[in-house]
Amino acid sequence: MAGLAGASPVGVGILGATGYTGAELLRLLASHPGAALRALGSRQHAGQKVADVLPGLPHLTLPFVDDQTSPEAWRALGVDVVFAALPHGAFAARAAAFLQAGLKVVDLSADFRLRAASDYPLHYAMTHPAPALLGEAVYGLTEWCGPELAASRLVANPGCYATAILLGVLPAVAAGLVSAAPIVVNAISGVSGAGRAPKQGTHFGECGNSVAPYRVGDTHAHLGEMQQALAAHGCRAPLVFNPHLAPMARGIVATTAVPLQDALSYAEVRAVYAARYANQPFVHLLDGDALPETRHVRGSNRCDMALRLVAGNRLLLVFTAIDNLQKGAAGQAVQNWNRLQGWSDTVGLSQGGWSCA
Amino acid sequence: MAGLAGASPVGVGILGATGYTGAELLRLLASHPGAALRALGSRQHAGQKVADVLPGLPHLTLPFVDDQTSPEAWRALGVDVVFAALPHGAFAARAAAFLQAGLKVVDLSADFRLRAASDYPLHYAMTHPAPALLGEAVYGLTEWCGPELAASRLVANPGCYATAILLGVLPAVAAGLVSAAPIVVNAISGVSGAGRAPKQGTHFGECGNSVAPYRVGDTHAHLGEMQQALAAHGCRAPLVFNPHLAPMARGIVATTAVPLQDALSYAEVRAVYAARYANQPFVHLLDGDALPETRHVRGSNRCDMALRLVAGNRLLLVFTAIDNLQKGAAGQAVQNWNRLQGWSDTVGLSQGGWSCA
Amino acid sequence: MAGLAGASPVGVGILGATGYTGAELLRLLASHPGAALRALGSRQHAGQKVADVLPGLPHLTLPFVDDQTSPEAWRALGVDVVFAALPHGAFAARAAAFLQAGLKVVDLSADFRLRAASDYPLHYAMTHPAPALLGEAVYGLTEWCGPELAASRLVANPGCYATAILLGVLPAVAAGLVSAAPIVVNAISGVSGAGRAPKQGTHFGECGNSVAPYRVGDTHAHLGEMQQALAAHGCRAPLVFNPHLAPMARGIVATTAVPLQDALSYAEVRAVYAARYANQPFVHLLDGDALPETRHVRGSNRCDMALRLVAGNRLLLVFTAIDNLQKGAAGQAVQNWNRLQGWSDTVGLSQGGWSCA
Amino acid sequence: MAGLAGASPVGVGILGATGYTGAELLRLLASHPGAALRALGSRQHAGQKVADVLPGLPHLTLPFVDDQTSPEAWRALGVDVVFAALPHGAFAARAAAFLQAGLKVVDLSADFRLRAASDYPLHYAMTHPAPALLGEAVYGLTEWCGPELAASRLVANPGCYATAILLGVLPAVAAGLVSAAPIVVNAISGVSGAGRAPKQGTHFGECGNSVAPYRVGDTHAHLGEMQQALAAHGCRAPLVFNPHLAPMARGIVATTAVPLQDALSYAEVRAVYAARYANQPFVHLLDGDALPETRHVRGSNRCDMALRLVAGNRLLLVFTAIDNLQKGAAGQAVQNWNRLQGWSDTVGLSQGGWSCA
Repeated sequence: MAGLAGASPVGVGILGATGYTGAELLRLLASHPGAALRALGSRQHAGQKVADVLPGLPHLTLPFVDDQTSPEAWRALGVDVVFAALPHGAFAARAAAFLQAGLKVVDLSADFRLRAASDYPLHYAMTHPAPALLGEAVYGLTEWCGPELAASRLVANPGCYATAILLGVLPAVAAGLVSAAPIVVNAISGVSGAGRAPKQGTHFGECGNSVAPYRVGDTHAHLGEMQQALAAHGCRAPLVFNPHLAPMARGIVATTAVPLQDALSYAEVRAVYAARYANQPFVHLLDGDALPETRHVRGSNRCDMALRLVAGNRLLLVFTAIDNLQKGAAGQAVQNWNRLQGWSDTVGLSQGGWSCA
Repeated sequence: MAGLAGASPVGVGILGATGYTGAELLRLLASHPGAALRALGSRQHAGQKVADVLPGLPHLTLPFVDDQTSPEAWRALGVDVVFAALPHGAFAARAAAFLQAGLKVVDLSADFRLRAASDYPLHYAMTHPAPALLGEAVYGLTEWCGPELAASRLVANPGCYATAILLGVLPAVAAGLVSAAPIVVNAISGVSGAGRAPKQGTHFGECGNSVAPYRVGDTHAHLGEMQQALAAHGCRAPLVFNPHLAPMARGIVATTAVPLQDALSYAEVRAVYAARYANQPFVHLLDGDALPETRHVRGSNRCDMALRLVAGNRLLLVFTAIDNLQKGAAGQAVQNWNRLQGWSDTVGLSQGGWSCA
Repeated sequence: MAGLAGASPVGVGILGATGYTGAELLRLLASHPGAALRALGSRQHAGQKVADVLPGLPHLTLPFVDDQTSPEAWRALGVDVVFAALPHGAFAARAAAFLQAGLKVVDLSADFRLRAASDYPLHYAMTHPAPALLGEAVYGLTEWCGPELAASRLVANPGCYATAILLGVLPAVAAGLVSAAPIVVNAISGVSGAGRAPKQGTHFGECGNSVAPYRVGDTHAHLGEMQQALAAHGCRAPLVFNPHLAPMARGIVATTAVPLQDALSYAEVRAVYAARYANQPFVHLLDGDALPETRHVRGSNRCDMALRLVAGNRLLLVFTAIDNLQKGAAGQAVQNWNRLQGWSDTVGLSQGGWSCA
Repeated sequence: MAGLAGASPVGVGILGATGYTGAELLRLLASHPGAALRALGSRQHAGQKVADVLPGLPHLTLPFVDDQTSPEAWRALGVDVVFAALPHGAFAARAAAFLQAGLKVVDLSADFRLRAASDYPLHYAMTHPAPALLGEAVYGLTEWCGPELAASRLVANPGCYATAILLGVLPAVAAGLVSAAPIVVNAISGVSGAGRAPKQGTHFGECGNSVAPYRVGDTHAHLGEMQQALAAHGCRAPLVFNPHLAPMARGIVATTAVPLQDALSYAEVRAVYAARYANQPFVHLLDGDALPETRHVRGSNRCDMALRLVAGNRLLLVFTAIDNLQKGAAGQAVQNWNRLQGWSDTVGLSQGGWSCA
């Protein structure tokens, strides 16, 4: 955190500040000791006060500006770094202009997560408008980033499911423990992952007392960034991903079955994970009988994790839990920005969850 | 349903009528056209009125009798068939006396689900007190029972998870499609599955807004009856079972990954399932993009089911949903009793779920 | 129930069968022993199968017809009575044609609840298109209807809040116990009362974990029918109505403070209520410390009710609970139709609630 | 906040740190810039680590000490101020010893809220063991305290309902606007208000999908402190209080009908409230059509408030919302402690709520 105390705060702006992710960013950055909020972008609410749009934040007096305002205008408002929390596809064509205007960018959409422009038609049904930037963007799964993150000016913040799953699977993959048989992930998410715009499926009367799978098997958009990250660490196993929706606003639990090359003891596997995440303040490896629960990470940027071995110690089960709006979105974005600024990961973020919510 | 119209109703009694399963049985049997409720057993509430114990049923005027009342006394009250909805282990030693008194028994606990007495210490930490009856009891996964069910006097009603999972996996197993690689099940249950007695983990402040796995891998008690049923149909694959708790009262979704011997098309697999469940009024195979949701089966005795093939058509995904208190417990008990009486499966049961709950 | 057994079922149709109220009607009428479902109307889903629109009812094979189909066409389909579950204002202009075609009508909207056409602009911002029918329509708060209900061909089914509140207040009003000081009602409703169309306020992320008042004081549309019913029984006290939304799908609790003319004992007031509701199978007066809870009436057509006296026995507190989709809408519609047919109130309806939901 | 920057943190301890209120205090104090956590008391968990008892706070390494440890021992651990979050009656007899040992005390129970020892048998069924301290304790409804709060060594933190209701009613009372007719309060609380110990009524299967009144009329324990506070400002009107439970963990909405002496305009009443709460950072008076919602105050120490006039402008409706664990308990305790230390009310507390929870 050297350099934070006493220094002038950095001017920050948020594009799409009224979605669930944007509003969580707003809440986090409003109390971040290194941040000075300079501009909040919204297409729908330009000109309105925060309190009228987000009644939970009536003490914030900053007005909303139009999301389409030019990067130069944002610069003139004192913005040094912009957090883009727009729908997928809405920012890709505008990123270059923000970078050229000298702004750093943390993009929370999928627009810069994939390396290959050719993967965008497949996973997002779009032709990427700025393929030249894909090579420059750093995929910001923070705990798996090296010094390239701090040196970057364009961070692609991972998806919420991808964060929960990759944090759980990559240690085994990177250590070469994983066989080529399918990795099967089942995950359960709260409803805020579907965004703030009302739809039939997120209407209380439909989802408020029900659990269901959706976009299962090989059909969910997050598969692209997950397969890319696994392949980057040498994994060739197919990934089967079955997400489910549960009646809570926040939280993701991911339960992953990873076939191993060889039978391994719990102690052996745990040692690999413990070594990988030593000194990572936001990954917490559970002991004994404990298993992750979304309530324990709610309001924190933490990922809780537990391991089990079954089927003759040839199948590794990894259980992870995150708050999808924190470590799965806004919190990880702040964590990545802390790296860009050379600050400790934990500045402005909570390692502890709410007692009861 | 031949023989139901015009016939005298059969006298029924319920042991443990105040738990969630017992009360659901009470609600179902109170409006069952072939049943006359004769006795409700409760240890805690003997002598009280239904309305004082279960305020949702104030129109029922039957008093509670002591759960420990002798079978002869139940017989004298006009009970012909007893539904035992007691905690595991509480009825095993008493069953023989009920049978000897000429009563038929549908037991909703695990006490007669396992064939081998030697499996009880392993899965239920108990020495079985009546091993001689284990061979006689019929495991009442109704759709998989033959004429032995109708001829039985002792039905072991399956567990809720076991019902949701076996209905989904057995068609592939019985058709010889399944390889020896591990079958991985992830299931999500509502909280009523944990029973009516308050505990820390089912306190609203703990579980009311959270999702978490529990008793994962190879540690859940239902594994015994599931492995037994799979083995009975020739399956040798290990079963990995990861249950999760979600903040709703009722419902189970099970998502099972079944490795196949050979690559199969969706049409081929679906044909196997459609053939198996033709004429089964409570199994509904979904089409197209549809996936099961617990809300659609709530209040019904139906099991909704969908199939997908992934990983080069070598991995079958089966998605099932049931109401854990209906098809997973009280509803299936009534369905089994209908078979004992020679009535249609659907008497007194609903194929349709609540519109919104 | 004389005349039901052995008689041919009556042909019924539902307009607006896919909303929460319409679908609940569909569920109730599908298992009503006197009803034969002949036609389901929907503007949006005409031609589709029930299972594709309402996946909880896959066993119903009736197709949807266009809501705008002529009364003669409904007649030709065998419909004798139509239940109209359309948005307010959608049926008013069409009712006359249905009546002229010889159909009986139970309208679940507000279109025929008010006696005076001049009240519609005030409470519903509409000019009534069929004022001549307002005098003929019977306001179907069943327990307060006399023989005019059975003789009617047009029933105006009360609003959900109005039902919960009027059942609780009318006995005191009708007995002349109430002073002219304001009656203050606070009510809490589940989210299904807002209908099935998704809106921001009923999006899970907004309402799924929150309680809030809305349309308070003298601004809610149900005030009109409540004031009309109170005035009809001689009450001149102003009515203050504060509804609140709570995170559950179904249920209404109403808590009403009624200033009395004179101090009265609990026994005196209770005797008035007990006399009024003797022989009414769906009103249940609680005793002792018991207070109504929405869970105990869920799935039933019952209204649970408790009384207290405070402030020197000059203020009567009335607590009521109903299921807003049953006694507050579809259930009461069926109860009213039972009266039209000369059947017992309870045919096809449940006095008991779900054990756990 | 003068004196906070650069100063040594004050040593704080918590008695009863594992209840919902204690754990919320722990979370708040762990990140409070003026606090150094020195000791956490627990009877049940003495010797255990925080992470093992409260898995949401795995980064806190302080061990639990026995709740019964002597004040001198707490002093020796470096504790300057103790927050007592014990059940009602558990701390009353021990407070004097803590004060004598030189500790300041913020008590979150009801043990020092009432002025008259003779009121304790009535409202709490206990004979007060330390009546001499009742006169010294300051009732810490912060916005209504003067300099006596900062000078105090024993603060009686108000109840959650009392906070929500008194903040809404006292401005009208203190301004002499209120008549002698009964004030009727209806309030709705989340389940965490009932504490962390599991009971039948807070079991998910019972309360998880239901709303109900409880301890209504003149029977709730909080009536004592509310009547005392109203009387202290000259109010003689009886208070009728109907609390309700709703299926959410946190939050209280209170809706209060206050009969006025004279008809007043909205502008007149609003001006009284605005003047009273000017410069109070945690009371937010809403404008226009807005009404308080628990979600907007969740995670904040704010009280949102709206006013309406009905019944010929002779009845004032006040709507308030708070987070029962923050402004209703732990947050207000910290706010009071900030006053004891001479710091700004807002130190370590949030004015903004969570975006979505």
